[in-house]
Amino acid sequence: MKPYRVLNTVRSEKPLVHHITNWVTIYDCANVTRAVGALPVMAHAPEEVQDMTGISNALVLNIGTLTQSLIDAMVMAGQKANAKGIPVVLDAVGAGATSFRNEKSAQLIKNVKINIVKGNASEIASLLGVKSVTRGVESAGVEGKPEDIAMRLAQQLQCTVVITGATDIVSNGFQTILVKNGHRMMGNVVGTGCMVTSVIASFAAVEKDLLVAASCALACFGIAGELAAEKAGGPGTFKEHFYDALFHLSEAQVEQLAKVSEYA
Amino acid sequence: MKPYRVLNTVRSEKPLVHHITNWVTIYDCANVTRAVGALPVMAHAPEEVQDMTGISNALVLNIGTLTQSLIDAMVMAGQKANAKGIPVVLDAVGAGATSFRNEKSAQLIKNVKINIVKGNASEIASLLGVKSVTRGVESAGVEGKPEDIAMRLAQQLQCTVVITGATDIVSNGFQTILVKNGHRMMGNVVGTGCMVTSVIASFAAVEKDLLVAASCALACFGIAGELAAEKAGGPGTFKEHFYDALFHLSEAQVEQLAKVSEYA
Amino acid sequence: MKPYRVLNTVRSEKPLVHHITNWVTIYDCANVTRAVGALPVMAHAPEEVQDMTGISNALVLNIGTLTQSLIDAMVMAGQKANAKGIPVVLDAVGAGATSFRNEKSAQLIKNVKINIVKGNASEIASLLGVKSVTRGVESAGVEGKPEDIAMRLAQQLQCTVVITGATDIVSNGFQTILVKNGHRMMGNVVGTGCMVTSVIASFAAVEKDLLVAASCALACFGIAGELAAEKAGGPGTFKEHFYDALFHLSEAQVEQLAKVSEYA
Repeated sequence: MKPYRVLNTVRSEKPLVHHITNWVTIYDCANVTRAVGALPVMAHAPEEVQDMTGISNALVLNIGTLTQSLIDAMVMAGQKANAKGIPVVLDAVGAGATSFRNEKSAQLIKNVKINIVKGNASEIASLLGVKSVTRGVESAGVEGKPEDIAMRLAQQLQCTVVITGATDIVSNGFQTILVKNGHRMMGNVVGTGCMVTSVIASFAAVEKDLLVAASCALACFGIAGELAAEKAGGPGTFKEHFYDALFHLSEAQVEQLAKVSEYA
Repeated sequence: MKPYRVLNTVRSEKPLVHHITNWVTIYDCANVTRAVGALPVMAHAPEEVQDMTGISNALVLNIGTLTQSLIDAMVMAGQKANAKGIPVVLDAVGAGATSFRNEKSAQLIKNVKINIVKGNASEIASLLGVKSVTRGVESAGVEGKPEDIAMRLAQQLQCTVVITGATDIVSNGFQTILVKNGHRMMGNVVGTGCMVTSVIASFAAVEKDLLVAASCALACFGIAGELAAEKAGGPGTFKEHFYDALFHLSEAQVEQLAKVSEYA
Repeated sequence: MKPYRVLNTVRSEKPLVHHITNWVTIYDCANVTRAVGALPVMAHAPEEVQDMTGISNALVLNIGTLTQSLIDAMVMAGQKANAKGIPVVLDAVGAGATSFRNEKSAQLIKNVKINIVKGNASEIASLLGVKSVTRGVESAGVEGKPEDIAMRLAQQLQCTVVITGATDIVSNGFQTILVKNGHRMMGNVVGTGCMVTSVIASFAAVEKDLLVAASCALACFGIAGELAAEKAGGPGTFKEHFYDALFHLSEAQVEQLAKVSEYA
C-alpha cells in the first residue's frame, strides 16, 4: 500500500468534499481538508444540500452535535451522493452515549448507503449492538476484540469500517488492515477524530478501493501527528505544527514512517 | 487554598463536562476542558440533552449565541443536572446588551438552580438589576463596586458568583475571594471568557466547595495566561502557548504564582 | 490613501461590529475583529438581532452556512442597520454554487441596502448574472475581466464591490482600486476570505468613504499575511503569526509595504 500515492492524487485532483458536520470541529474539518490538498465545503440547509452534494466528490456526515433537522439534511445529501456514486463517510461521534445518537445513526444507515463508517471502539461497537460504554465522545471499553467488531460491522453493512485508537483498524469485511501511526498527543487535542474523517473522505474521493483509501489516510494523518509531536510544546502548538506537517508531508517521510500491515 | 490540588483531582478523575454553549467559542470550550484534564461533550438536541447530562459530572450553560430553542434545551439539561446533583455553571455572555439576553438569563435562573454564575462586571450587574452598560459582550462600566455586586447577587441567588476582570472576584454571599492572576493579553483573544467557565465547571465537578473550585480554577487559568504571555509574540501565538501552559501546569508553578486572597 | 490612518482610527475608536455569519469561521471572524482593534459581537436570534445592530457600528452578513432562518435574521438586522445609517457588508460566500445561495443573496440585496459586497471572482460574477463557476466556495473561472465585473456590479447596486484574489479589486462604480498585498499561503488556510470581510467592516465603521475603507482594510490584511508568511512553517503556524502580525502592525510596516493603486 502506497499512502503517498493517494495523498499525491488528492493534491493534484483537489476533490471537493461536502461536509454536514458538528459545530465544535467544523473549522478543523474544513481546514484539514484544505491542508491535505482537497477543497472543503460546508452546507446544511435542506434547500441546498443536494445541489452541493451534486457538485462534490465525497460526502462527510458527522453526528457530533446532531439535531433532527441536521439528520434530515444528511439523509437528503446522502441519497444524492448514492445516486451520484460518490463515497459517503459517516463519523458516528458519540454513538452509544445517548439513545438519540443510536437511533439517528441507525436511521442514517437505513436510509443512506454508507461507504465508510468511522468511530472509536465503543462508537463502532454500539452500532453493531455489542456491549460497550461511550463516555460523551470517548470510548470507555468494549466487549470483544475491536478487530473482530470492525470486521463484523463491515460484513453486516457491506461497507468499510474504521476504528481509531492507538492502533487504527480498517476492515472491509474480507480484509483487515492495521495502521500503527500516530502520537498520544493527538488524544489531548479536541477534533483529531473528526479531522481524520475529513482526510479519509478526501482520499476516498480519489481512490475507489476504500480499504486502501482509509488506510492510506490514517497513515498520512498519523505520520503528520508524529512529526508535529517532535516540535510541539503541548496540545496548543501541537495543533499548528500538525497542520504544517500534513501540508508539507513528503514522499520520503511517508515511505519511511508508514506502519501499515495486514491483520492476520 | 491549594489550586494545584483541585487541578490534580481534575486530571485524575477526568470528569465529563456537558456544554450547551455558543457557536463562536464552542471549540475552545471543548479544547480547554481537555487541556485541563477533563472530558468535554457538546450536545444541544432536546431529544438527548437530559441523557447527556445524566452521564456527566458538571453542566455549562453559555448564552453567547442563544436562541429560544437553545434556551429550552438548557432548561431541560439544567433540571436534569439539578435532579442528579451535579453543578450547573451559567456564563451570562452579553447579559445587559439586549433585552432578550436579560429575559432569557432570568428564565434560566428561574427554572434551573444555578450553582455558579459567571460574567464580566456589567453582565453580572445587569442580572442584579444594577445600572451598567454591556457593549456587545464587553463590560463598559457599572455603578458600584464589583465586589459588592458579586456578593449581593450571590446572596440573592444563593449561589457562587464570579466576576472576571483584571482582578477576578468570587463570592458565595458570605465570603469573597480575589484572584489576581492573568495577563492583559488574554483580553486581546476571543474566547478566554468562555474558556474559563469550562475550567470552573471542570473544577466544580470534583470540588464541592464551589467558592474554592471557582477560585482555584481562576488562579490556574490566570497563571497559564501569565506563562503563555512570556512566550507569545501576539494574540495568535499566545493562544497556542496558553494551551501548552495549562496542559503542563506544575505544582511548583501554581504554588509560586497563585495570587488568591480574601476580600476584606 | 493611508491604510495606517484608518487602522489607527479603528484601534482608538474600537467600533462594535455585529456579525451574522457562518459556523465554520465564526471564531476567526470574531478574533480578527479583535486583533484589528475593533470589538466583535455575534448574535442571530430574531428576538435580538435588531437590538444588537442598534448598539453596533457596522454589520457583517456572511452566507457561508446560510439557512432560511439566518437569512430572515439578516434581513431584520440589515434593515435596522440601514435605518441607523451604519455600513452593511455582505460576504456572498459560495454564491453561484447552488441556486439557494443565488436566491438568498438576491433576497438580501433586494430587502437591505448593502453598502459593501465582497466575494471572490465567481461569487461576484454570479451576483451580476455573469457566466462563472463556483466550486463549493472557490472561484473556478469567470467570463470577462474581474475589474469590469466589480465596476458593473457596483454601478448596478450603487455600492462598493470587493473582489478578492491575487490582486484585490475595489470599485464604487466610478473609481476602481487595486490592492496587491497578500501571500499565497493565505489561500491554504480556511477562513481568510471571511476574516477580511470582518476587517473591511471594522474599517468601514470608522471611515465613511467605503472605497477607502475597503482598500485600506485589504492592504493591512494582506501586509499582515506577508509578514506572517516570513515566520510560518506551514498553514498552521501561519495562522497564528498572522494574528500576531495584524495585532502589532505598525505605521512603518504599512507605509513601506502597502501596494494600493488606481486601476486605469
